[in-house]
Amino acid sequence: MKRSALGIAFTLVALTGLHADEGMWTFDNLPAARMKAKYDFTPDAAWLDHVRLATVRFPGGTGSFISGDGLVLTNHHVGHGWIERVSDAAHDYVKNGFVAKDRQAEIKVPGLELATLMAMENVTAQVAKAAGDPREALARLARESGARTGLRCEPVSLYQGGESWLYSYKIHKDVRLVMAPEYAIAAFGMDWDNFSFPRHDLDFSLFRVYEDGKPYVPPHHLAFAPSGPKYGDLTLVVGHPGHTSRLETLAQMEAYRDALNPARIRTLDRTRKALHAFAARGAENARIVSGTLMGLENSYKVFVNETLGLKDKDAMAAVAAAEKELREAVAKDPALQASTGRSWDLVAEAMARRSAVARESAASGGSLLGYVHGLLRLEEQLALPAAQRGAGYRTDKELEARRAALGGRRLTNPGLERETFLAAAKGALEDLGPDHPFVKALLDGRSPEAATQALFDGTRLLDPAARAKAAEAGVKGSTDPLVVLGRRLFGIQESLRKVREETEAVIAEQGARIARARFQVKGRSVYPDATFTLRLSYGAVETYPANGTLAQPFTTFGGLYDRADAWGPDAENHSWELPERWVKARGKLDMSTHFDFITTNDIIGGNSGSPMVDRQGRVVGLVFDGNIESNAGRFFFDPRVNRAVSVDASAILEALSKVYDANHLATEIKSK
Amino acid sequence: MKRSALGIAFTLVALTGLHADEGMWTFDNLPAARMKAKYDFTPDAAWLDHVRLATVRFPGGTGSFISGDGLVLTNHHVGHGWIERVSDAAHDYVKNGFVAKDRQAEIKVPGLELATLMAMENVTAQVAKAAGDPREALARLARESGARTGLRCEPVSLYQGGESWLYSYKIHKDVRLVMAPEYAIAAFGMDWDNFSFPRHDLDFSLFRVYEDGKPYVPPHHLAFAPSGPKYGDLTLVVGHPGHTSRLETLAQMEAYRDALNPARIRTLDRTRKALHAFAARGAENARIVSGTLMGLENSYKVFVNETLGLKDKDAMAAVAAAEKELREAVAKDPALQASTGRSWDLVAEAMARRSAVARESAASGGSLLGYVHGLLRLEEQLALPAAQRGAGYRTDKELEARRAALGGRRLTNPGLERETFLAAAKGALEDLGPDHPFVKALLDGRSPEAATQALFDGTRLLDPAARAKAAEAGVKGSTDPLVVLGRRLFGIQESLRKVREETEAVIAEQGARIARARFQVKGRSVYPDATFTLRLSYGAVETYPANGTLAQPFTTFGGLYDRADAWGPDAENHSWELPERWVKARGKLDMSTHFDFITTNDIIGGNSGSPMVDRQGRVVGLVFDGNIESNAGRFFFDPRVNRAVSVDASAILEALSKVYDANHLATEIKSK
Repeated sequence: MKRSALGIAFTLVALTGLHADEGMWTFDNLPAARMKAKYDFTPDAAWLDHVRLATVRFPGGTGSFISGDGLVLTNHHVGHGWIERVSDAAHDYVKNGFVAKDRQAEIKVPGLELATLMAMENVTAQVAKAAGDPREALARLARESGARTGLRCEPVSLYQGGESWLYSYKIHKDVRLVMAPEYAIAAFGMDWDNFSFPRHDLDFSLFRVYEDGKPYVPPHHLAFAPSGPKYGDLTLVVGHPGHTSRLETLAQMEAYRDALNPARIRTLDRTRKALHAFAARGAENARIVSGTLMGLENSYKVFVNETLGLKDKDAMAAVAAAEKELREAVAKDPALQASTGRSWDLVAEAMARRSAVARESAASGGSLLGYVHGLLRLEEQLALPAAQRGAGYRTDKELEARRAALGGRRLTNPGLERETFLAAAKGALEDLGPDHPFVKALLDGRSPEAATQALFDGTRLLDPAARAKAAEAGVKGSTDPLVVLGRRLFGIQESLRKVREETEAVIAEQGARIARARFQVKGRSVYPDATFTLRLSYGAVETYPANGTLAQPFTTFGGLYDRADAWGPDAENHSWELPERWVKARGKLDMSTHFDFITTNDIIGGNSGSPMVDRQGRVVGLVFDGNIESNAGRFFFDPRVNRAVSVDASAILEALSKVYDANHLATEIKSK
Repeated sequence: MKRSALGIAFTLVALTGLHADEGMWTFDNLPAARMKAKYDFTPDAAWLDHVRLATVRFPGGTGSFISGDGLVLTNHHVGHGWIERVSDAAHDYVKNGFVAKDRQAEIKVPGLELATLMAMENVTAQVAKAAGDPREALARLARESGARTGLRCEPVSLYQGGESWLYSYKIHKDVRLVMAPEYAIAAFGMDWDNFSFPRHDLDFSLFRVYEDGKPYVPPHHLAFAPSGPKYGDLTLVVGHPGHTSRLETLAQMEAYRDALNPARIRTLDRTRKALHAFAARGAENARIVSGTLMGLENSYKVFVNETLGLKDKDAMAAVAAAEKELREAVAKDPALQASTGRSWDLVAEAMARRSAVARESAASGGSLLGYVHGLLRLEEQLALPAAQRGAGYRTDKELEARRAALGGRRLTNPGLERETFLAAAKGALEDLGPDHPFVKALLDGRSPEAATQALFDGTRLLDPAARAKAAEAGVKGSTDPLVVLGRRLFGIQESLRKVREETEAVIAEQGARIARARFQVKGRSVYPDATFTLRLSYGAVETYPANGTLAQPFTTFGGLYDRADAWGPDAENHSWELPERWVKARGKLDMSTHFDFITTNDIIGGNSGSPMVDRQGRVVGLVFDGNIESNAGRFFFDPRVNRAVSVDASAILEALSKVYDANHLATEIKSK
């Protein structure tokens, strides 16, 4: 009681000082001195190898080996789409959860591949020496390395091109579903509680890697700590943060804030509403779109809150100050000034071009319009001699890939396409007005409803066979209404594509110059922007000021039932309804078990499913989210309020034992 | 899940429409049509008489009779100071709670008086007809009425003087403490959770009114409903909201936002820090200031958040629009224009005068400086012929009252006075600079520390006997350093007093003109600003968007233990430490019992302890707070987020039975 807002003030001073736990660090460049000073911990090479080799990359997320028999831990929401893929109407493992009673019952997941990072090689010097486009040089080095090692080698460009690396992965192709809790407990609170804290989500799922038909024995796996962390404990996150824009310029952030994000938000909002309308028309509809919708809602909330974050004057002033400092340093050095002096202005000009067409770009981005534009662009390119074609349309192999992509393009569902097309058409009319060339071409004098009806009644290109044929044989002379529409829009879409490509080229080139200049000025004291490659983040269990008080560092199972009791099962379309297993297990659970918790780790999308480990490299938690205050984390880390949200290791074990009758899994996880 | 931010949007539309539950309505002027339309409920005269006569006014709060034996329910924080008064170091009922095993064990509380509103009379016409100052006319009518009825009659001015009323109270002078929970559970979360939601406070206490040595049998008392309300249920609050400024002008709100509140916040912040420092020096110190400190922290948080609320552009735009509409209506009516056309500008000028001296006014407001200024002003006035003296210094009776007030003035504690004086002196130096006349006079060339030491080492006026003598005999020729300091500051303090009195007069006069104009334009469709008189507020249990999600409408006992478990007993100076009784009772309680809940009722300080009743007039909850979003409630009610926070009736009964071994009280409350 005796500290109140005073306490907040002290915390702010402490956190905004040089000891903030900011950074998604590459394994070759950890801020060892800062970690040592603040947490008295310096990971050695063996520690780093251990956690790296026990970590896997999922499509869009992260996981980790947690047993010697290849058991893999990740989030439910990372596994969601895969769980959906092995489900059907009769076996809805998303809704009902899944527990394999034994290994025979584990379900192979078609298409799911996991990757372990085996080696990293800095090839910046080789790339610098190579002639031609450095990106192509790096790609060539990656191909050569992959052929040499048999590993999947990926080119990695750090610091906006300032460093070039080869990352080599071992790929696991036989991955089976072992256990998934019910969606309703994995995402308790549904879209409402998404990103919020206090939170009560059991957002985990278990898979197993097989090799030669047997459980794979990974060379390294992570042990579980006897319990989750205590308040203030050091926590280390190993994972693959997807994408940040922290080294981008102030002009870029302002453009996102003022034009690009608002346009994106409007489009996302329309699409999600269309999907909700589709889902409301039946249980099977709802099942089909549940994964897509979860992703959409997530993106929508991120963009809305990221945009709010970009409006934070203090945070933007800090970005402006850092940029000013770097520009002044550049201006003092004649060589830097020659290479980079104009870079910020050139980026600003490019962003202004993008901002100017933000709304029509957003309006033209639907899956159907993208598909038909691809068809027509292929036709246009094929009409040219190979040497005059654009990148990606020159070799037979490239053209084959184009055709395959267009022919195999998965249009989710005709009813859903129609719903989203109509919403987009109405949106374009609303945002751009009836006299805009894009709208004129799209509607051709009709109402959005009439245009949609004519299109969907007439087109045959919703049929996969017709799409495959169109991709092979082309659509010359076709009177299919989708093709006719595509031809009307072609010029506009081409000009938008050119703006996008030209501005991307400017931004990439000038961004790399700025990054190199920053290198020269700052060295490697900064971390590179996230690139969905392996990073380490350090932090601690820590509160933040929220809602007029302090956020409690942990939630408990008791808090889960509190929230369920408070709302009741029916509120807000069952957002806080407990699955039957949890209603029944109530009397058996230790209510004081820590459930979810918050730490100062710097994470972002792609870190989902990352193991959170202690100094001994043992799992204490499973990262699954950032709080809503961290939604501008793509652009900056605000140590006052940015927090990672994790499932406590003890909640996973307690739930496996007492809710899911899965003692065999709890035992496997706990065994040495 | 299917509604997400869409849901918020719908809620906003619904709530900001004409059906917002805004208003602290007088019993003679309820918005019956609106209540009927929204909740299908119209209280009749018997219903209104029943709840009015079962309600009591506490000093600074509200309570209600809840048994036929005069048992009174109020908040713990309304009772806090009185519980402290019957405590001592050996019997700390604030810390340890108190349960009277039987009626003999109930403790008489010296000085505590409760009041029941027996009658209300509209005397606007009589006051209008009376000659002279209308306030004096109203006071005279009140004296006459009191003499006639034997009740305590108070003058009540509604609508900034637009209506004049006489309110007559029956006074209860024998009030005894029956039961108080431990402070730690009454204010669980302490200053941190104050105003926040979700909340877990058992903020109630029980008193009993006696008459002639026996439990008083009130003509009306409130029954408890069998359980608290459900989500969406209509809730009615009967109580005494203290003070609002909702009919004040935009210029007033802007002045509070920009000058007066910031100065007040700085002073409050310094004083609270000084009190914390004092409390940190020993348990007895802490005990002495605990009540004062709670009030200070409360005020500090209110002013900080009220000022944030005043910065809400949408809310201020609504205030501006309403004012513009009224000014235009006034401008169209020649008589109104003549009486009121300039009123807004005159108020704005007065506020500008007050804003200009906001910092020095705040700096000169300490208890010691106020005391010595009072002494010296008495001396100055006594030197004048009675006819030339200021108001309040003319009659012997008035002078006697002045002397008694000065002599009996309770300076809390010499150590504490010193701590706060030093803090204020440093603050004045910091805020006003060394060259400001006030600072020069205060410090006389010394450092704040040296000035404080000289003052407190030298003055004898901290001694009550010396103060009594000074009040009687005056301080002419005194060399006491406090008197010397007072003489140096006298001119400045007098000029500040004059600014205050002159601007208050302008604001009162012009505010009354504006209120009368509003009457003429709007009739009684609006409610008058709160005046610590009886009001009815209607609303319902309802969520609001908070923290990226929806606030849960209720908390439960399970949530209490969740929060206690999450923080542990030691965090933030034991802010979330459960009392021993609650630790022991954990296994016995029904964890799903609703604990606290939120409603759309429009309340403010003074409503603390108000009974919240259902349509049958039965207690479903006990109002104890507003959420932090309602901290600008003094100026406007924002239906999107303003929520009242209450203790659920079932939590009180469950705690009495299972935690406090007080089945005799639970039974008394439940008996018909």
